[in-house]
Amino acid sequence: MRLQISRSTYERRIERIKGELQKRGLDALMVLDATNAFYVSGVPFLSTERPIGVVVPLEGELTVVIPKLEEDHIRDVMPWIKDMSVYFEYPSTKMFEKGPHPMEHIAEVLKGKGLAEKKIGYDRIAQRSGYKGPTWDKVLPKAEMVGAGDIISEMRQVKDTEEIALMKESARWGNLALTYLQEYVKPGLSEAEVSMRASYEATMAMTRALGPGYIPYRGRIGAGAGFRSQIGKDSAYPHAFMMNLTFKCGDVLGTGAGANVGGYQSELERTMIIGKPTEKQEKYFNLMIKAQDAALEMYKPGVRCCDVNMAALEVCRDAGCTDAIKHHTGHGIGLQGHEPPFLDAGVETVLKPGMAFSCEPGIYFPGFAGFRHSDTVVITEDGCDIITYYPRDIDSLTIPC
Amino acid sequence: MRLQISRSTYERRIERIKGELQKRGLDALMVLDATNAFYVSGVPFLSTERPIGVVVPLEGELTVVIPKLEEDHIRDVMPWIKDMSVYFEYPSTKMFEKGPHPMEHIAEVLKGKGLAEKKIGYDRIAQRSGYKGPTWDKVLPKAEMVGAGDIISEMRQVKDTEEIALMKESARWGNLALTYLQEYVKPGLSEAEVSMRASYEATMAMTRALGPGYIPYRGRIGAGAGFRSQIGKDSAYPHAFMMNLTFKCGDVLGTGAGANVGGYQSELERTMIIGKPTEKQEKYFNLMIKAQDAALEMYKPGVRCCDVNMAALEVCRDAGCTDAIKHHTGHGIGLQGHEPPFLDAGVETVLKPGMAFSCEPGIYFPGFAGFRHSDTVVITEDGCDIITYYPRDIDSLTIPC
Repeated sequence: MRLQISRSTYERRIERIKGELQKRGLDALMVLDATNAFYVSGVPFLSTERPIGVVVPLEGELTVVIPKLEEDHIRDVMPWIKDMSVYFEYPSTKMFEKGPHPMEHIAEVLKGKGLAEKKIGYDRIAQRSGYKGPTWDKVLPKAEMVGAGDIISEMRQVKDTEEIALMKESARWGNLALTYLQEYVKPGLSEAEVSMRASYEATMAMTRALGPGYIPYRGRIGAGAGFRSQIGKDSAYPHAFMMNLTFKCGDVLGTGAGANVGGYQSELERTMIIGKPTEKQEKYFNLMIKAQDAALEMYKPGVRCCDVNMAALEVCRDAGCTDAIKHHTGHGIGLQGHEPPFLDAGVETVLKPGMAFSCEPGIYFPGFAGFRHSDTVVITEDGCDIITYYPRDIDSLTIPC
Repeated sequence: MRLQISRSTYERRIERIKGELQKRGLDALMVLDATNAFYVSGVPFLSTERPIGVVVPLEGELTVVIPKLEEDHIRDVMPWIKDMSVYFEYPSTKMFEKGPHPMEHIAEVLKGKGLAEKKIGYDRIAQRSGYKGPTWDKVLPKAEMVGAGDIISEMRQVKDTEEIALMKESARWGNLALTYLQEYVKPGLSEAEVSMRASYEATMAMTRALGPGYIPYRGRIGAGAGFRSQIGKDSAYPHAFMMNLTFKCGDVLGTGAGANVGGYQSELERTMIIGKPTEKQEKYFNLMIKAQDAALEMYKPGVRCCDVNMAALEVCRDAGCTDAIKHHTGHGIGLQGHEPPFLDAGVETVLKPGMAFSCEPGIYFPGFAGFRHSDTVVITEDGCDIITYYPRDIDSLTIPC
């Protein structure tokens, strides 16, 4: 079993890009974003100061431009990449002397493909780890460079069956990691201990169950679960940072889990409570569930992102909890944990079958607690498929004290 | 014990920025890069589609612009941030209706500080998680916006005593994680098992030893060690991706370890061998050591980055191994794993006391093995301090078979 995108899917993606280039009168697409490069070519590039480039010409083979340290690896494990152009390093593309910048190397590749004076779309400029480089007009003064980041961005927003299968596989092992996490929480233990033990055991189970066909491709191997210090009154911080807090009875916990599979992700978050919930805890927990239910009703083709968002926010507002709303209802998910489109008041994008989102309205009360579940939801022909299936009700999420 | 940068250091950084603004005739610096924002303000922002902004005016208090979901958190844990400007979300800064873009919100903050028609330096444009936004000329048509990313970048290149202390703390626990890793490797075990067990135990020891004064601030809590599938013949890939390989006698291993402390990092990598090294393994292992030694001789004030790089590369070339060189000799390190300056043929930057680099020349032989140690080295007044101290010799790095 190979848990990865098939070659025919990569070929189909490239054909779709070519179709879009033709429509726009572009002669090539220059891909510089590492996630987009993976989407188009399957090359799982570890992004540092060194840029990757993938040239998709209107006609003919694609070319992958990589630094020397990836050459043997890609040649050995991805023999279907027929055209590689290798530069030595960043910022010098020569080994023993100051050579041209990688962007100049990329410009030479484009010139070599007869594109020096053509119209070329590009997705973005690399900006990792202190990267600096010349602009297009410096390295390709006679070409017409056109921002075309939307071509791949739009394609990535609608997942195909292979992508959804990888996300479901991810959800399965995130579910196991969260199960262990809930089992291991005990007053007096630290979050580092519980999260690392749960992540270790879920990863052991996952790697043994899936065998060598499983490769994460992006991010760490295996499954993980944790708290990010959303513990007790700190659960009121939607994005707390980890401080290694210790659990105690009465704590509300913000928990999360996921797994990297073939480059894809899922998102699963649950609010848990240590000990019998108080009336106040139960009230807000159930309000959060009601908001999530209201949003989930809206995950179907034809609905706008802003309306999904609003459905959840209105439930909180109508319960008199507007002040407790700290963020929108969700985000796209797939190759990245957060990706467009966003379920936000500013987004009129219409939901289509294959789109995948988190569903995670939250309410937060400073000094008391925060309440948020997050599920990963895929839009289907006539509604949606909630691919995370961990119990959501308060009884299932109450931890003995 | 608080393992973090002190408030007086943040104040000193801000004063230095103001001094630089004055020199350049700038009225403010607009910081949009999340790492730079942490460097200036201490706000440990979890970077997603939502931008952070820090305005450092030539005179007066700095302003931190953040999305709603960070507001309570920063107010509670960073009370010294006196001026916060909060927008609701990305892409809409209003909760219940389509509002201005966060960049327009940032422009309003600048206008509110009397900067609408002034000369403002900025470091970069946010580009995470599919972020899209208007350019400066759209949101601040009357201001003169000047690229000034080098102000903070140059400051970050020279570490002060607090930063170096955090990096040394990181090195200590990376050392423990790598010690466990080496102890736990056994033929027949998988890399996921060994790396997760070593990381778990090192993190438990680290968090218990350091107590609540330890906060990672950026990245995961604790210490970690692993292989990234640089195992056996796959050690010849400088940046392999993790596949959960199984160890066997005769394998050459590329191992690495580190820990996040107060926002800072260190880098420690060792080539290890399972079983008595063959003559060929020993020959290349010792050549790698010789190259690293040659580079280490050059880590002192006044030497250029390109010359440090060359010292290691020449050793490999002179041994007839030019084809085995796949990358430059090292990179800056601190808040980021890789940061400028780079030890590369293209870089004439001169080493100064306080600069911190990896030292990691490598040689790689496809189908056979790769050899690379990496140490973290801080430039001192009269030479350097190698803050990673794991043994480097082949006997210490041979694992029983």
